[in-house]
Amino acid sequence: MKVIFLGTSGAIPTLSRNLPSVAIQRDGEILLFDCGEYTQIQLIKANLRIGRIENIFISHLHGDHVTGLPGILMLLNHAARERPINIYGPPGIKQYIFTTKKILNFFAGYEINVKEISEKTILAEVKGEDYSVKFFLLEHTTFTLGFVFEENDKPGILDVEKTRALGVPEGPLLKRLKNGEDIKLEDGKIVYSKDVVGESIKGRKIVYAVDTRPAKSVAEISAGADLLIHDGMFAEELADEANLRGHSTVMQASEIGKNAEVKKLALTHISPRYADPRLLIEEAKSVFQNSYIAYDLMEIEIPYKKGFEGSRVQGLK
Amino acid sequence: MKVIFLGTSGAIPTLSRNLPSVAIQRDGEILLFDCGEYTQIQLIKANLRIGRIENIFISHLHGDHVTGLPGILMLLNHAARERPINIYGPPGIKQYIFTTKKILNFFAGYEINVKEISEKTILAEVKGEDYSVKFFLLEHTTFTLGFVFEENDKPGILDVEKTRALGVPEGPLLKRLKNGEDIKLEDGKIVYSKDVVGESIKGRKIVYAVDTRPAKSVAEISAGADLLIHDGMFAEELADEANLRGHSTVMQASEIGKNAEVKKLALTHISPRYADPRLLIEEAKSVFQNSYIAYDLMEIEIPYKKGFEGSRVQGLK
Repeated sequence: MKVIFLGTSGAIPTLSRNLPSVAIQRDGEILLFDCGEYTQIQLIKANLRIGRIENIFISHLHGDHVTGLPGILMLLNHAARERPINIYGPPGIKQYIFTTKKILNFFAGYEINVKEISEKTILAEVKGEDYSVKFFLLEHTTFTLGFVFEENDKPGILDVEKTRALGVPEGPLLKRLKNGEDIKLEDGKIVYSKDVVGESIKGRKIVYAVDTRPAKSVAEISAGADLLIHDGMFAEELADEANLRGHSTVMQASEIGKNAEVKKLALTHISPRYADPRLLIEEAKSVFQNSYIAYDLMEIEIPYKKGFEGSRVQGLK
Repeated sequence: MKVIFLGTSGAIPTLSRNLPSVAIQRDGEILLFDCGEYTQIQLIKANLRIGRIENIFISHLHGDHVTGLPGILMLLNHAARERPINIYGPPGIKQYIFTTKKILNFFAGYEINVKEISEKTILAEVKGEDYSVKFFLLEHTTFTLGFVFEENDKPGILDVEKTRALGVPEGPLLKRLKNGEDIKLEDGKIVYSKDVVGESIKGRKIVYAVDTRPAKSVAEISAGADLLIHDGMFAEELADEANLRGHSTVMQASEIGKNAEVKKLALTHISPRYADPRLLIEEAKSVFQNSYIAYDLMEIEIPYKKGFEGSRVQGLK
């Protein structure tokens, strides 16, 4: 699984940074987070097939995060899409999509499923085949959603040599052991799952928090995440402006990443004033070594964690 | 004066061709024709200052011609625009702009003057300081406007040596001569304007006809134009598809350019299937040597005509 930054500028694009969009690429599926103008071409540049997009998440209805969406929907039609596409965003996203579709009179030979997430429905959950995406509230100048992508944990590997040695017959008992169940053999002997099944493989977790001021909600929700993607629009000297405009400095964001003990922190929505990002990199790294200033088409591989002992995995055992 | 092609693809963008937009750059002013997604960045790439745009013309409400407009309007605000911007387009353009503005809640610290041109108001005329833009109907699959940009003719140069020799005193009489008036001197002698004023300098004319099937209206209106910018989406083998989808082949367009005796013909709205434009170039040139297949950031200088004897200039004399 990797994360690709399709656009890393904030508010206005520059020659080197396009407007916000991030893709998560998994086996055969792409999830898209925000969709600034020109995202359709950035997808091509990143070698991501538009047909693989199943779910699009829009954080908020500011133009820089959403003006690329109509183009994506038109492109899907040109690509002869037949499967539905799912779009999740704040209240108003439906009106934006369907009013634009009506005025520009574009045809979509596929269903556009739009689900508005409001404060009332913030606990909704998007279920993929082996992952979920949850929503939470960010602190921006308008209603803005954060997203938590989390894979389901995978059961550990069954040690077949051990089960044979313990006299477990081939068949359904092995599956029960693999699923964490302790079993009783015909001779009354009990075989404990934990003795024959390796450690569960902890699902990976990515948090998307753009645009936002430094927020407790992000710090709490990001605990132990493999990757936190966070608003890092300004250097520290513009902390007041960041606060006024509902953004974060890279130091504020790095503080959150550090305290949440995330594996990596990627800072994005970079103000166009930082054509040279060195100041931002220095400030971010001075707080948290695992901070990175994102750039367009940057890719981050997300490896599996090892040696995880979180409660849900314990429960599975 | 030059014409810059900001986007030359049709329907969907490619890595080398962006969505339709053409700029006319004159002393201190830019006119923009259509505004596909990413036009704001193409303006930067072409070194065109967004603050110089006074008039934007939208041909029709298909997404590829207009999805870059909200971004331009937001960028104008970031650039601290205070003067109004004028936008001309088909019925529905007002709704597109102001609905988008409302849903995306973007602020504009300047006035957005939108004028819808319908069949009823097709004879409207936009007056610049020394030019006009007129509208006419194209033949596409939806209501689509063509545009005729035309400079006012400039009076010829007054030959001061000749006026002295003829005894014309310095002062207002010279201005009257320059403006084409014949004058009577105090001694009763008549001085004819045509004897002391050089030939008028004919204003330059550019016609924008995208998207359209080959249309009589274009052929008539383009007569003698310095530049005709015309839909050239397909090669001849796809003439049926061109007709079905309301477009032209490059040969059809070249036929029009040739018959209208335009100085140059620039073909644009190129189908993404022609990554290599050589076939298009060959076909176009086989009909009309002054045909060009536009490419992104292509610039065409428009020189003044010489030796013009058109009726309106005669009238000025």
